[in-house]
Amino acid sequence: MPESPIRKLVPYAEDAKKRGVEVFHLNIGQPDIETPEAALQAVKENDIKILSYARSEGSEEYRKKLSQYYGKNDIEVDHDDIIVTTGGSEALLFTLGSVTDFGDEIIIPEPFYANYNGFSVANGIKVVPIVSGIEDDFALPPIEDFEKLITDKTKAILICNPGNPTGYLYSREELEKLKELVLKHDLFLIADEVYREFVYDGIKHHSILSLDGMEEHGIVIDSVSKRYSMCGARIGCIVSKNKNLIQTALKYAQARLSSPSYALLASEAALETPSSYFENVIEEYDARRNVLIEELSKIEGIKVSRPKGAFYCIAQLPVKDADDFAQWMLEKFSDNNQTVMVAPASGFYSTPGSGKNQIRIAYVLKKESLIRSVELLKLALEQYTD
Amino acid sequence: MPESPIRKLVPYAEDAKKRGVEVFHLNIGQPDIETPEAALQAVKENDIKILSYARSEGSEEYRKKLSQYYGKNDIEVDHDDIIVTTGGSEALLFTLGSVTDFGDEIIIPEPFYANYNGFSVANGIKVVPIVSGIEDDFALPPIEDFEKLITDKTKAILICNPGNPTGYLYSREELEKLKELVLKHDLFLIADEVYREFVYDGIKHHSILSLDGMEEHGIVIDSVSKRYSMCGARIGCIVSKNKNLIQTALKYAQARLSSPSYALLASEAALETPSSYFENVIEEYDARRNVLIEELSKIEGIKVSRPKGAFYCIAQLPVKDADDFAQWMLEKFSDNNQTVMVAPASGFYSTPGSGKNQIRIAYVLKKESLIRSVELLKLALEQYTD
Repeated sequence: MPESPIRKLVPYAEDAKKRGVEVFHLNIGQPDIETPEAALQAVKENDIKILSYARSEGSEEYRKKLSQYYGKNDIEVDHDDIIVTTGGSEALLFTLGSVTDFGDEIIIPEPFYANYNGFSVANGIKVVPIVSGIEDDFALPPIEDFEKLITDKTKAILICNPGNPTGYLYSREELEKLKELVLKHDLFLIADEVYREFVYDGIKHHSILSLDGMEEHGIVIDSVSKRYSMCGARIGCIVSKNKNLIQTALKYAQARLSSPSYALLASEAALETPSSYFENVIEEYDARRNVLIEELSKIEGIKVSRPKGAFYCIAQLPVKDADDFAQWMLEKFSDNNQTVMVAPASGFYSTPGSGKNQIRIAYVLKKESLIRSVELLKLALEQYTD
Repeated sequence: MPESPIRKLVPYAEDAKKRGVEVFHLNIGQPDIETPEAALQAVKENDIKILSYARSEGSEEYRKKLSQYYGKNDIEVDHDDIIVTTGGSEALLFTLGSVTDFGDEIIIPEPFYANYNGFSVANGIKVVPIVSGIEDDFALPPIEDFEKLITDKTKAILICNPGNPTGYLYSREELEKLKELVLKHDLFLIADEVYREFVYDGIKHHSILSLDGMEEHGIVIDSVSKRYSMCGARIGCIVSKNKNLIQTALKYAQARLSSPSYALLASEAALETPSSYFENVIEEYDARRNVLIEELSKIEGIKVSRPKGAFYCIAQLPVKDADDFAQWMLEKFSDNNQTVMVAPASGFYSTPGSGKNQIRIAYVLKKESLIRSVELLKLALEQYTD
């Protein structure tokens, strides 16, 4: 198993805190947004006496409510097209296990969410990266580049939309191109859409399952973690019209028996969250994004991709080795007893040497903290010597 | 993925209920015992505002309390020897992934918990069964039989103690023999000890980690599910003094980010459960076991193994095909609009054709229900024709 790249710096951050240094955490996707009240209340007011197993695939009631949620998002699915999982992580683990055999390959545009590597290793499959560039904000690579990488071992293409760590939002045209590609080569298109609601600039998110003809080829990975700021719930799901996929995923679900019951209560209640909650949250993230990009752009030598969704962005720094720089900020740098922790982007690439001068910034802190964080980054860059 | 054998009959049980037939569920290990009040209260009184990720390996506080719990059970471990997991299922999945490569083998005395198959398939490894017999209540097979099965691909021996589905409790002498075997061949001994507390007749449970010299070779799989009647919590752990194993399992844990936060609250509080709770629960299970065995023994042609632990027993029926018989009881049989659901034991064997005339009975119902269930079983056997 590869080590999670975000974790490597954790001991240095702990040491900094022991020295009394305040660390601004731009390194992780743990939002500071409050969980919807309905979800919290459902758990507080539970009348469980025996904390029993839940149904392996999730209760029919919850899945029916989920299918209504998807209907509102232009995804026409039945409750039978849904397997409830223990987080988006498990949804991806089961999906990869279901569509591949040992030694098979999946193509993923890089940079990509680092744990895709872990789930692939756990399933004995090979990740084939396809490079997307900061120059065009990490847009979809040319379809010809995908075709060059497809072998008889390729089983699926995996995208994250909107993207972690890039913040890129695929257009309908890009998704149509991917659809044609997977239909032509009889592959699965797996889309991690856990950040679906978090899109900005009035642009609409398109699910791969809203495209005609994706019934047998499209698989959506979903999660309540970011949507309702419920990362600790560990509830997600697999959505697909492909009956074979759902049946195989169900066997994985049955082998682990059940998702966590309290979290299921919270997740079902979370579906009642009023739209005003999302309006406020998205307004807040949008404002944070704008501040972050504006402040970063003032720093000489930094190139930053403007995210259209999620709450991450990739920044290219005027340093040779962002891993070393990020560690140095925790080990050696502080201003007014404060420093900042970022995720070196190299861990989001699987092509060796790629992204060495890039970092991922999660804009999950309040505006003032973001402004101060960028100021710290600027000061650090001025003091740092390769 | 193999289908869970217990699930095959679920649609027949659902049909029976639709016809208005009451079904006594002796087929699953979902206890009817109430969860300890301390655990339930901890969740009801939580003051969580943001349901955040928990630490991947579990909080230091919880693991320290767990190490105290283990200390009381003759298992001397530090909090660093523990990785908190999402149920015993995940503990086993991570452990098998950590100690094997694709194509490796693990030896498991059969009959064994059916999902061991699923986790093995998910990890691309081969289960090598070693037969234990109902004649001696499923005691440990001779060590020579193990040695015949060990190849250069064998990485571990997996036992469940006390056993699901057998109820067998390994003696200290048996565990010492296994210890010598794994030390001689440099294998891991993995013990699923989730039923540790549920032992009867005044016999003591011995953990493999209470034996001297198991530091590098012993791995305990544990769970709160049965101990505190918290199957729906989905909290378990891996316990081992082997640092490499713990480091590898930690990477699996980090890839899936976190165990469920609410359930962690409940599980930590559950450690405060007074010993009177267990005394009552064990007394109840013991009484149920005695009633079940007594009633079963009255039926002509039934051979039943007397369980010393857990809450299952294997019964051998005077039928050729217990799968067919169990299905028939749900489809065709009823008395006074009642019938009984059992788990055909063939699903707990991986040697083809083994256990065809056996069933597993979970004594998770009240005494009166057990008595009526056995009565129904008796009537069904009288009416059933192969």
